[in-house]
Amino acid sequence: MNLMQITQLFTKTSKTAPAEETSKNAQLLLRAGYIHKEMAGVYAYLPLGLRVLNKIRTIVREEMNQVGSQELIMTNLQPRETWEATRRWDDAVVDVWFKTKLKDETELGLAWSHEEPILKMMQKYVSSYKDLGRELAGSSKGISVYQFQTKLRNELRAKAGIMRGREFVMKDAYSLHSSQADLDEYYEKVKEAYVRIFDRLGLGDDTYMTFASGGAFTKFSHEFQTVCEAGEDRLYLDREQKIGVNEEVLDDAVESLGLNKDKLEKVKSAEVGNIFNFGSEKAEQMGIYYTDENDQKQPIYLASYGVGITRAMGVIAEKFSDEKGLVWPEAVAPFRVYLVQIGDSEGVARAADALYKKLTQQGIEVLWDDRNSKAARAGEKFADSELIGLPWRITISERLIAGNKLELTNRGTGESEVLTTPQVFDKLKTDIIN
Amino acid sequence: MNLMQITQLFTKTSKTAPAEETSKNAQLLLRAGYIHKEMAGVYAYLPLGLRVLNKIRTIVREEMNQVGSQELIMTNLQPRETWEATRRWDDAVVDVWFKTKLKDETELGLAWSHEEPILKMMQKYVSSYKDLGRELAGSSKGISVYQFQTKLRNELRAKAGIMRGREFVMKDAYSLHSSQADLDEYYEKVKEAYVRIFDRLGLGDDTYMTFASGGAFTKFSHEFQTVCEAGEDRLYLDREQKIGVNEEVLDDAVESLGLNKDKLEKVKSAEVGNIFNFGSEKAEQMGIYYTDENDQKQPIYLASYGVGITRAMGVIAEKFSDEKGLVWPEAVAPFRVYLVQIGDSEGVARAADALYKKLTQQGIEVLWDDRNSKAARAGEKFADSELIGLPWRITISERLIAGNKLELTNRGTGESEVLTTPQVFDKLKTDIIN
Repeated sequence: MNLMQITQLFTKTSKTAPAEETSKNAQLLLRAGYIHKEMAGVYAYLPLGLRVLNKIRTIVREEMNQVGSQELIMTNLQPRETWEATRRWDDAVVDVWFKTKLKDETELGLAWSHEEPILKMMQKYVSSYKDLGRELAGSSKGISVYQFQTKLRNELRAKAGIMRGREFVMKDAYSLHSSQADLDEYYEKVKEAYVRIFDRLGLGDDTYMTFASGGAFTKFSHEFQTVCEAGEDRLYLDREQKIGVNEEVLDDAVESLGLNKDKLEKVKSAEVGNIFNFGSEKAEQMGIYYTDENDQKQPIYLASYGVGITRAMGVIAEKFSDEKGLVWPEAVAPFRVYLVQIGDSEGVARAADALYKKLTQQGIEVLWDDRNSKAARAGEKFADSELIGLPWRITISERLIAGNKLELTNRGTGESEVLTTPQVFDKLKTDIIN
Repeated sequence: MNLMQITQLFTKTSKTAPAEETSKNAQLLLRAGYIHKEMAGVYAYLPLGLRVLNKIRTIVREEMNQVGSQELIMTNLQPRETWEATRRWDDAVVDVWFKTKLKDETELGLAWSHEEPILKMMQKYVSSYKDLGRELAGSSKGISVYQFQTKLRNELRAKAGIMRGREFVMKDAYSLHSSQADLDEYYEKVKEAYVRIFDRLGLGDDTYMTFASGGAFTKFSHEFQTVCEAGEDRLYLDREQKIGVNEEVLDDAVESLGLNKDKLEKVKSAEVGNIFNFGSEKAEQMGIYYTDENDQKQPIYLASYGVGITRAMGVIAEKFSDEKGLVWPEAVAPFRVYLVQIGDSEGVARAADALYKKLTQQGIEVLWDDRNSKAARAGEKFADSELIGLPWRITISERLIAGNKLELTNRGTGESEVLTTPQVFDKLKTDIIN
């Protein structure tokens, strides 16, 4: 619990970011003490940053459980054999492999995705159509699993902060089915779950289900793209229908979907999620079959579903920030309240301590700036609170105590109100419900 | 929540383990569906296995928070420069590196430990003695951080199942101090936390604080060794004093600690934790200093503290198992209760469903074997419940319902009692308290 006092937190804010760091998300997250840069595209997550990641993970986990997906964790180290049948071991086919070697010179890969290992593992558990007949979400049937994994990808360039890392956290899910119809039905359920995820993360208004290039079994894959100046993708939006088209399939999508090309709006965007229908292609390449009702061997149908957890955090930092710092949406903020005590009198310290305990007891997460005025002046505390960007700030001072009041400031609007303690609690509670 | 019904779980039990798998922990965990083997020393954790890992993580997290340590997550990818000053980049010095390359041929390492990256990162946050003056646990002072990380180590051999992996989960903590005295005081606090951790994991009785070889700054380091037939270490125990001595420092420790060599008992053991006092050696090698009260540059003192999370799970599986399967201690079992319904009548199904909901409402985690008799006969269900090894089994059958009774079976003792529903709940509640 002591983590919640600034004097206990080892990180410090700083006024400047390293010169070589050009992306806004990394600049702000570094300055506010959320992340540490190990090297280009490789960031550690410090206590505040880990709290944000965990908030995002919890939302994604709840929605994945909701569609009947089961959490597991696969491995980073990968043997060559798993990837050869699908030709994805080859660096010329997949250009983001990091590879390494055992002592006996056996080459291993570091998993950048998990379709092949999942199918291979499932061979042990799926033999009959009955194994693929479990109800998942609604009437959809199959097996669905997901993981939160630290993925390593050998990106040529990494300049977008935590929006494109060489080491990053991804939620990747995989569903297996006995037919294309079953896959399609479940695929729709995950699409809906993804809409809920991005809504809950605060990205809903600007996130577009987007048509991108498909594979052997499907004309288009689907991406979830968030409109964002720092994004690396280029998107054509139909705002009315709330769909996007990736530049790479523009003409094809316009024709297939009957869109009006002239009405599409070109924007910069970041891919925060993607879903991909592999059909039975991978199972056929790998020779992975189940036995149907008529005792016939049939290939397993596979789809995969990704959400970039650290990337989503980066996109949120880009979009919810201003010249003073970060402005976290309630759902992902590391704490809801930044409690500032102004002045070093016993009265102020005692009032702050009492309020800190009361907030904590009510389940309201609070970061308490308990530094004395020698360690940080009032102006520095306010500046830090704005840089760190929690949704609410509560100020306690000698003068406010004298009038039995607190000051409540909204980070987003900048509005401050002088209120009684019960009014502050009412306000914070109402806000949870909205 | 559907995860808790066997018909929803994609894993299956099996009667046999792969022939090449010689370790008992891996055999049982593979057969019961807790883990999947990707390659030698590299295992995925399936839904049941991930639940056990999370239970272990929660216990370790609570105890680390208790001693004022702050959770973060460092990176796997490591640049050479970080490790050169301490000479630990060299494969001849550290023989467990996995190394890989960026596209421009820059060599990177995959972190097998994090002393160097932690010190380097802390340079940004520690400049003055005040930064190292925070209270941690009791009166001890410094900064303490920890992480749960998937570590990669290029082990020559990996034959002990999840007790020695090439990819495994470790809790590693690092503490920084301004003096050896501060370090020593905190080091004792973490030692005590480790005793509590292994007690809570169910390993307390067989886990010995053990003297092992130290470094430049300390005669001995301390290991936590659990007596275990499958362990790779050889230990000399003084059972009365509850201390162990690692074979590598036997004579030295006997002399230093005034032990009676003839009374020491030689046992096989597994190292589940270790703590290491680096003194100021690493900071001096890396040139990492703070400024003291007299404006003088002083090196930072460093200690590190590891707990093998997946290894602890393996040791628990080795020690708490019998010829029928696993016998999880309450604190780490993936669920507390295995609920078996015998017979396919509506009455049985309804009673099982009601009990399942009631248990869940009371916060008692339950895995419900809701398979019908075509999918699994009673004998198979009982065998699975024994293999999976949850602490309690509740059986519901036509005959038991008729008498308003349930059967409660203890996995450890094998004892069964026929009880009323309230008696079952009383028993399960009392058991939590004990």
